[in-house]
Amino acid sequence: MCLCVYVFKYLSCTTIFQSVEYHSIMIKKIIFFTLLLASCPAFSQPRDEASIKSIFDEALKNGKSYEMLQYLTQNIGPRLSGSPGASSAVAWGKGVMIDWEFDSVWVQPVMVPHWVRGQKEIGKLIGSKKKDTLALSVCALGGSVGTGPEGVKGKIVEVKTFEELAQLGTKNVRGKIVFFNRRMDPTLMNPFLAYQGAVDQRSDGASEAVKYGAIGVIVRSMNSNLEDYPHTGSMKYKPGMPKIPALAVSTRHADLLSKLAKEDKDLQFYFETHCETLDDVPSFNVVGEIKGGEYADEIIALGGHLDSWDLAEGAHDDGAGCVQAIEALRLFKAIGYRPKRTLRAVLFMNEENGLRGGKMYAELAAKNKEKHIAAIESDQGGFTPRGFSTSGVESAKAKIRNWKPLLEPYGLTDFTQEGAGADIEPLGQLGALLIDYLPDPQRYFDYHHTPEDTFDKVSRRELELGSASIAALVYLMDQYGLK
Amino acid sequence: MCLCVYVFKYLSCTTIFQSVEYHSIMIKKIIFFTLLLASCPAFSQPRDEASIKSIFDEALKNGKSYEMLQYLTQNIGPRLSGSPGASSAVAWGKGVMIDWEFDSVWVQPVMVPHWVRGQKEIGKLIGSKKKDTLALSVCALGGSVGTGPEGVKGKIVEVKTFEELAQLGTKNVRGKIVFFNRRMDPTLMNPFLAYQGAVDQRSDGASEAVKYGAIGVIVRSMNSNLEDYPHTGSMKYKPGMPKIPALAVSTRHADLLSKLAKEDKDLQFYFETHCETLDDVPSFNVVGEIKGGEYADEIIALGGHLDSWDLAEGAHDDGAGCVQAIEALRLFKAIGYRPKRTLRAVLFMNEENGLRGGKMYAELAAKNKEKHIAAIESDQGGFTPRGFSTSGVESAKAKIRNWKPLLEPYGLTDFTQEGAGADIEPLGQLGALLIDYLPDPQRYFDYHHTPEDTFDKVSRRELELGSASIAALVYLMDQYGLK
Repeated sequence: MCLCVYVFKYLSCTTIFQSVEYHSIMIKKIIFFTLLLASCPAFSQPRDEASIKSIFDEALKNGKSYEMLQYLTQNIGPRLSGSPGASSAVAWGKGVMIDWEFDSVWVQPVMVPHWVRGQKEIGKLIGSKKKDTLALSVCALGGSVGTGPEGVKGKIVEVKTFEELAQLGTKNVRGKIVFFNRRMDPTLMNPFLAYQGAVDQRSDGASEAVKYGAIGVIVRSMNSNLEDYPHTGSMKYKPGMPKIPALAVSTRHADLLSKLAKEDKDLQFYFETHCETLDDVPSFNVVGEIKGGEYADEIIALGGHLDSWDLAEGAHDDGAGCVQAIEALRLFKAIGYRPKRTLRAVLFMNEENGLRGGKMYAELAAKNKEKHIAAIESDQGGFTPRGFSTSGVESAKAKIRNWKPLLEPYGLTDFTQEGAGADIEPLGQLGALLIDYLPDPQRYFDYHHTPEDTFDKVSRRELELGSASIAALVYLMDQYGLK
Repeated sequence: MCLCVYVFKYLSCTTIFQSVEYHSIMIKKIIFFTLLLASCPAFSQPRDEASIKSIFDEALKNGKSYEMLQYLTQNIGPRLSGSPGASSAVAWGKGVMIDWEFDSVWVQPVMVPHWVRGQKEIGKLIGSKKKDTLALSVCALGGSVGTGPEGVKGKIVEVKTFEELAQLGTKNVRGKIVFFNRRMDPTLMNPFLAYQGAVDQRSDGASEAVKYGAIGVIVRSMNSNLEDYPHTGSMKYKPGMPKIPALAVSTRHADLLSKLAKEDKDLQFYFETHCETLDDVPSFNVVGEIKGGEYADEIIALGGHLDSWDLAEGAHDDGAGCVQAIEALRLFKAIGYRPKRTLRAVLFMNEENGLRGGKMYAELAAKNKEKHIAAIESDQGGFTPRGFSTSGVESAKAKIRNWKPLLEPYGLTDFTQEGAGADIEPLGQLGALLIDYLPDPQRYFDYHHTPEDTFDKVSRRELELGSASIAALVYLMDQYGLK
């Protein structure tokens, strides 16, 4: 794609005019920054404070994350692996990193699964006494098989756990539709923990239910709140077991279904899904790099995933993480910071239903004998900064914690959690310290994998603060390493 | 109003059914809680942890803030002092606190200002060369005088500060419209500080401009972001000075106006506002109380303000604060906690344009020789918890800071700020420790005083967490006092 055309397509005129002014003042900034660094000793609290303030000031005054996200979500939109949206997103990611004049920009080919939803799902309750039916708010789970036009009809068996399902056994389950209705625990302060405590129903429910002869599964959507829309997400079948169709139902309709099934023991559920898994298709990770000046062989990777579910724009999941990775590198250029180490923005493909991109990135890193000292992923939404989780050797984790006083003024107070995003996880085996950017988690599951995950749910300041937070931590790792 | 009818008006059927179950389990909770308190010594980290967890669990499982806010914002809506909405809100506040069976519920009569916007404002630019006009997104500032149907027309003089205005002086300003265009500083991490650094333009701009013969003022809206809607808010005239009309313009149109005025020195601006200040009218604060068991004469007041600007639903400003004050007391009843001290939820009237309610509350407290040990206000939006600011004697502030380890697990990490909400401020002179609930501040000014301050901008979890945060701090003050 012609980059000039591209720029005009995704930047407003105002932004372009600002860019001209911006480049002329950038030279001044580079000189200022070079003097700042040259005039200070190897470790300097005031110098680091000043550098981090430059990063945040640039993000809050001239940040570009929000405009980038607007283009990705509203002009490209949904981008499930294998879809036309995913291809457009790859071209966009490459184009935008070239526009920001990163030292190198390239793509990494990777074959990805290709699941398509097909025609909109139907799910309806059929009471025993009335001819009336009641439509439920449902969607097929990603990776599930379709029912085809003939649909699936059966009685409902509600369970909260796999243990309960096993106790019911074949005699109560055969020929029926299993309804997994365990709510995400609302009392856990971190909704991600509540998600972890409920998501087995979505990922493994079908494989568990089929053991006892179920003909389909319905899963309560992954949110502790009551809402009207279903949450999709990936599920998997156990090899060698029959594949039965699997649906998510909105939390409000899950409550209704549970109530009605108790009142009417002969209640039946009919559903139709038209999804299918096609052959794998070629796709790409997108990588942009700023080469390090002193230790070019030491790489710090920062990324998000470019693919998103098909039901929405993928704004928080994970357009936000993608633009934050790009923006972090742009911030360094904007403030005139020349990194010692090599910094890479990585847009991973296929996090949602296969993790092929993350695996391929690590595979290539191993093959090319690259030394990743750290990898940061932003995949918990574009919300206000809270901290960073870490996973790796204790000495490196301790070094991150020691920087807390420099990051706390920006709302980054939580450095105690353990954990790493799915895309970067394979880099742990290559010795990288794994880090997740932790934004405030309270709103995430209101949008996750739903039609509600749209650009208008993102706050400009919260998003830009996230980019600056990531850049600030990268700056410290770049300055001091992790040894 | 008949309370049964009222309940049916504002609670969904589901909620009512849940309430029946809820009352039956409440008795068990009261027994549990009484045993818990009886079995522990005077100060107990585990006991306090357990109590605070009970508060948060109840808020996150069965919280009622969100439903209350939905009724207040969507069924009542805007409620500027003196408006029918304000009257309905008073009736609602009283009714809901009676429904939750607080020990006493009453209103405090107070005369309030009565400003009305009238017909929608018009603001348009008239170029010197063309007959074309360009409409700007504007609204009259609260308390300003109207132009009447004849409108005001004049050239534009743009300034950033009052000093710049003074330097221009009468010869450059007379007969013109002063455009105050200083942006809220986006680089300040706390947007409330940026607001403080810009709001003099709105509150005092007209009085400053009229000194030099200006015929009207236009003020850049109070947000650092670019948006399409204007922010209203109060302004005041200096006694004895002529009153000139005053408008807010959206930040995006402020930029446009600035650009066009530079390009066309003869650009004129025409505007019409139809607002007026009518005679003061009677209104009310609403107060609900749970009587203390041991030190009933020691009062802890918690509140928000019931009035809101006329342009929107007043969801974050300050419906959120009102429902959180009510909910905090409801939480204590729900978990079976019997306070030692007297706890009061106060819905103040007229914070936005007069502070009459806050002043009246303190006046009555002084007259009745009431002893307020502390007052907490929630008026910074229904966002995720961050901490509490304090204002008062150092020993009491230190006591609050010492409880940080008990509150940190809930995201309450900031206990260093000084400050107190406008409604509770007069209680400081009566010896109360003044406390503001501090939610995350990053999104507040996207909604503040605009048509965007609607219920859909509020997250259920964030709102309920705020109610629980306030209740948790009130619990600790109730248990241990502030001496």
